[in-house]
Amino acid sequence: MKQNIKKIDSLNTPCLILDKEILKNNCNSVLKRCKDLEVSLRPHVKTPKCIEVVKIALNNDTGPITVSTLQEAEYFASSKFKDILYAVGIVPSKLPRIAKMQEEHGCIIQVILDSVEMAKAVADYAKLNKVNLEILIEIDSGEGRSGLKPYDKKLNEISSILKEQSETQLMGVMTHAGHSYNSNNPKAISEIANKEKEYILNAANNLKKLGNSCPIVSLGSSPTMIFGTNFDGISEVRCGVYMFWDLAQASRKVCKIEDIAVTVLASVINHNYQDKRIIIDAGALALSKDISANKFMPKAGYGLVCDKNTAIPFPNLYISEVHQEHGTINITNEKWFENLPIGSLVRIKPNHSCLTCAGHEKYNVLENNYITELWNRINGW
Amino acid sequence: MKQNIKKIDSLNTPCLILDKEILKNNCNSVLKRCKDLEVSLRPHVKTPKCIEVVKIALNNDTGPITVSTLQEAEYFASSKFKDILYAVGIVPSKLPRIAKMQEEHGCIIQVILDSVEMAKAVADYAKLNKVNLEILIEIDSGEGRSGLKPYDKKLNEISSILKEQSETQLMGVMTHAGHSYNSNNPKAISEIANKEKEYILNAANNLKKLGNSCPIVSLGSSPTMIFGTNFDGISEVRCGVYMFWDLAQASRKVCKIEDIAVTVLASVINHNYQDKRIIIDAGALALSKDISANKFMPKAGYGLVCDKNTAIPFPNLYISEVHQEHGTINITNEKWFENLPIGSLVRIKPNHSCLTCAGHEKYNVLENNYITELWNRINGW
Repeated sequence: MKQNIKKIDSLNTPCLILDKEILKNNCNSVLKRCKDLEVSLRPHVKTPKCIEVVKIALNNDTGPITVSTLQEAEYFASSKFKDILYAVGIVPSKLPRIAKMQEEHGCIIQVILDSVEMAKAVADYAKLNKVNLEILIEIDSGEGRSGLKPYDKKLNEISSILKEQSETQLMGVMTHAGHSYNSNNPKAISEIANKEKEYILNAANNLKKLGNSCPIVSLGSSPTMIFGTNFDGISEVRCGVYMFWDLAQASRKVCKIEDIAVTVLASVINHNYQDKRIIIDAGALALSKDISANKFMPKAGYGLVCDKNTAIPFPNLYISEVHQEHGTINITNEKWFENLPIGSLVRIKPNHSCLTCAGHEKYNVLENNYITELWNRINGW
Repeated sequence: MKQNIKKIDSLNTPCLILDKEILKNNCNSVLKRCKDLEVSLRPHVKTPKCIEVVKIALNNDTGPITVSTLQEAEYFASSKFKDILYAVGIVPSKLPRIAKMQEEHGCIIQVILDSVEMAKAVADYAKLNKVNLEILIEIDSGEGRSGLKPYDKKLNEISSILKEQSETQLMGVMTHAGHSYNSNNPKAISEIANKEKEYILNAANNLKKLGNSCPIVSLGSSPTMIFGTNFDGISEVRCGVYMFWDLAQASRKVCKIEDIAVTVLASVINHNYQDKRIIIDAGALALSKDISANKFMPKAGYGLVCDKNTAIPFPNLYISEVHQEHGTINITNEKWFENLPIGSLVRIKPNHSCLTCAGHEKYNVLENNYITELWNRINGW
């Protein structure tokens, strides 16, 4: 055994375990799907925040990515990722960091906006500082969070403002149908995917009529990527959680529970015989307090308790309560005190992997039942 | 202005701002209370995870502390904190790290346990490795998470096992009345505080009858520390969130909203006119998804929206929804679009400060309206 290869039992708990084979299968499956549908993939790195994972998602390339923080942008840009979309509404205070990154790394950090004020601010900044900036207009395809409606007159104003400066280039439109998470009905999600496409194509056509070339027509969420049936006219899909999947997605039938690539390894630390509870050392920080799965999977708790080696869920064992560093498993059969003695290990399939992983700084990479690598995450802003 | 002194407006968002004056007042108030009540304070560092904060809590000393992770223990031990209680049930796999810390830093890391199995495992490890270990027995004073009841016969067995080895020293008992968070009635919390004290004193007396000296009788939570009236016989109180306070505590009348020392600085990034929403760049990762306050303060949301300079909450403005990097503020009056233009800053008072801070790596320390220092946190395990 190589010196840096470890057994699961030797890890400090709590920690993340990432199953490389499942990760590869998830990534390859979406790469194939995008190829079949003839649409480009711009994976969202906000779930893994990890170079090695994203390279697998891009077939060992440093292709286009989507980021949710400038910290992610800096991390990936410094590892030769040149084509980055920052998919959170831009504000003027963030432009100097973006300009610096573009200059230092020779990359493009595309920004998004949905207001005339920000179009003016971005154009002013670009002109004053002689910085080239690529911009997408954010479109609301039904989520009701941010973005303009496809026929909003502001699209006209924004495109005019950006055309006035040679430093600003309006590249197109983007949307995210986050409301695809509201359903567990594949047909309903498929309809949301159709609407997402319809809205963004309408916005793109509107911009084209205004004389813009609009090369980028970008949309995506993992559910609409899976249940969408036709991406004609779409230049790229953005999705991220598919790399790891989680119970929130499984509860919506977007993946299967066995497709979940990431788990939290934890130690059993207490047996509470009186209240029939087993306590583990993974709580609110190691698992997160996200319960997105529970709308459609009430017994997801804060994660499913699984065998440490196979990651197969034990029947009816889930984390019913979390404190900062404690997770509580209620049991109905006392055999679990024998099966899971104090000091033994379990793996927890996460409710929402984006948030669970965010509490951790590293992935312990599992291959053929051994931990073979340690991969970093980039947290923070 | 010194070179390292910054204005709030120059910070990257989202980030934590820690008001040093409020922090000092909170810490001094509890120091005074403990002095008046003639009980020692062993602050729980799991809220701040920060050397500078904890030194203020200990009147500029490196006195006794409570930790929730071995990562915290290592961080504080390497900064001359010598007396550390690791207040999460010990398992054998964690003992080598503890032994190493004790040897490297000349500190004591007390461990807790509540089972005969762990008493045996700890005794075996101590004997085999010739490591001195100090142990407290965890007592359940009504929370129903971990710990033995005060008269459980296992106390006898555990004390016998630990006495057999000269390397293991049973120092006493500890409890945490976490169920004090279930009420917002000071009288009810005061009764829980009385029970917490009664249970731990009973356990201590039980151990003394068995021939143990039991010098440590440790209890605590911030609510029971504030509403407890008498700590006779108690050697130390453990509490942590009082350093920062939060809406969860304010909702239970344990503190006032103006006592909250930590806020999240965020930028307004979108105006959604159609749905009357303002979007900020602090979401589930910058604020956490904890809504502990909302049981007693339904309009706490994921935090209260406050003025960037005064940190005074705007009337009826709270974060109603969070996505990973987006926070949504629903407004009823459109004047807020004018008052909070895109690019402007707000500060968010956190729902539960332990979890909000956990998403961040640093504190921007505010003094007299300027950021004067940057303090580190120690996250992870």
